[in-house]
Amino acid sequence: MINVAIVGYGNLGRGVCLAVDKAPDMECVGIFTRRAPESVNPVISVPVYKVDELKNFKGKIDVLLLCGGSATDLPSQASEFLKDFNTVDSFDTHAKIPEYYAKLEKVAKENGTLGAISIGWDPGMFSIARMLFGAVLPDGNDYTFWGKGVSQGHSDAVRRIAGVKNAIQYTIPKEQALSSVRNGENPTLSTREKHLRECFVAIEEGANKEEIEKAIKEMPNYFADYDTIVHFVSDEEVKDMQKKLSHGGFVFRSGKTTNEASHLIEFSLKLDSNPEFTGSVLTAYGRAVAKMAKEGKTGVVTVFDVPIKYLSPKSEEELRKTLL
Amino acid sequence: MINVAIVGYGNLGRGVCLAVDKAPDMECVGIFTRRAPESVNPVISVPVYKVDELKNFKGKIDVLLLCGGSATDLPSQASEFLKDFNTVDSFDTHAKIPEYYAKLEKVAKENGTLGAISIGWDPGMFSIARMLFGAVLPDGNDYTFWGKGVSQGHSDAVRRIAGVKNAIQYTIPKEQALSSVRNGENPTLSTREKHLRECFVAIEEGANKEEIEKAIKEMPNYFADYDTIVHFVSDEEVKDMQKKLSHGGFVFRSGKTTNEASHLIEFSLKLDSNPEFTGSVLTAYGRAVAKMAKEGKTGVVTVFDVPIKYLSPKSEEELRKTLL
Repeated sequence: MINVAIVGYGNLGRGVCLAVDKAPDMECVGIFTRRAPESVNPVISVPVYKVDELKNFKGKIDVLLLCGGSATDLPSQASEFLKDFNTVDSFDTHAKIPEYYAKLEKVAKENGTLGAISIGWDPGMFSIARMLFGAVLPDGNDYTFWGKGVSQGHSDAVRRIAGVKNAIQYTIPKEQALSSVRNGENPTLSTREKHLRECFVAIEEGANKEEIEKAIKEMPNYFADYDTIVHFVSDEEVKDMQKKLSHGGFVFRSGKTTNEASHLIEFSLKLDSNPEFTGSVLTAYGRAVAKMAKEGKTGVVTVFDVPIKYLSPKSEEELRKTLL
Repeated sequence: MINVAIVGYGNLGRGVCLAVDKAPDMECVGIFTRRAPESVNPVISVPVYKVDELKNFKGKIDVLLLCGGSATDLPSQASEFLKDFNTVDSFDTHAKIPEYYAKLEKVAKENGTLGAISIGWDPGMFSIARMLFGAVLPDGNDYTFWGKGVSQGHSDAVRRIAGVKNAIQYTIPKEQALSSVRNGENPTLSTREKHLRECFVAIEEGANKEEIEKAIKEMPNYFADYDTIVHFVSDEEVKDMQKKLSHGGFVFRSGKTTNEASHLIEFSLKLDSNPEFTGSVLTAYGRAVAKMAKEGKTGVVTVFDVPIKYLSPKSEEELRKTLL
């Protein structure tokens, strides 16, 4: 059995809990949290500890599944945990990955541990798609679309506008852009042509709808470069929408081998629960890290470095026989 | 530069030639053929040799890209070549892969060489999809559909019927089955429900169309379990169709993380030229084999064992920075 521990119990931690529970070869030693352990109600039966107690589990955990956020939790925590444990995380600030990698690689090499970073669906499975398809069809273009799903950053930005009580923002890929890519037209797509932004906004009593709509649509970086639709709804309606955590997206590679022969590769996800799916990916890579560490591998790895056989509980013989 | 050689120059060999020509880090040392070298007209400028001359190139070739067929060529040749060279092949007889693997693994280990087997799109990229998706969503089902594209085996079977002059058979996934899977209905699909078979048949003068149609539709293993459509056309029309080598297919994984949360992963290929695309996959894995062999790896590998970073000519740093 592979002994795992979950650090952080938000939506992602809950998703990892569910995934570990479905894994025939994994056992969850505990959930480690910064909150009061008694305030955490895990979705499966598993002990909850204060995160400070982790040090007492050194040598008893094969891999830590880090479920903190990329903004502040992971940059401060991951390198500390990596001193004593093998880890998997979902660090998703694309621009900061090289810096994050370098910092963790140093710690892992010094301490003989193994860390898998940026695991999830993007970065993660979408990265596999982009890299693999590009290597196979070098003469071509790739396209990544996200949605329909909630962008937390854009929802936050709307909520910061004066007079807004609550808000949720959906990123939606434009059908016309998807069709053009699917038809092999190799389009050059502007930001506006790729995605639509749809906001559902609950306002404070007496707030000015027109001004708020203008403030949203003209917000630089977040909305100004997009077609944005704004709906004014009740706070209850927004809260209802916030319960659904569905998401998804598409990666395409369109390329040619000769002027006469074009090819299209399409990879897509349609997810009812973004954190539960991300938790499943994290868990599969947790298995891989435990196996690779046992073989003596140290340092930092990404989805580009991990042979996919390590993700499965099945033997190599069974994989070749049944899935090749 | 990685020095490669191409063994066998049919449609696949031509596809590999084109792909190697597009690779910035690969050079083609030569094409090796059983035919008279002067009868081969490569699509790029490259020397052609008799296959017996390969022995004189020992130590000068980083990897052989084997472009023979799975029925007779690869089972007899691959283990011989693997004694002196690293190899990549597209062995695609799914049921015989374990036996093929075992035979080649022994030779490779004894001779310190590295062979990648069953490389292409199925087995190959579709295998990656099946394995990866199943590891990430263990509580679910996978579905593989092929087509629309030509099945060589079924075309051959029709051509063996008395009175048939020429024939081509297309395998076509049924829209209703695809929709049901895409809608997350997790259907149990019979052979008949998954694919349709469409035959275009040119007959000898005086042959009986009704008898031929009956012979096709009732042929056990090949057609009896399918809905089959038969068209009678001229020999020229069949020959025209035989020039187009388009193919494609789909891999789906439909699964759930809880009873409330289902997820759908879809991977599809739409290929204008099956051999040119397969040749591109073979070439990318040729690069991987050359790099892994240089690092000291020996034995036999499949797509499950090869970290995808090795498929790209880009550095690991660049991959993390631009594609993760």
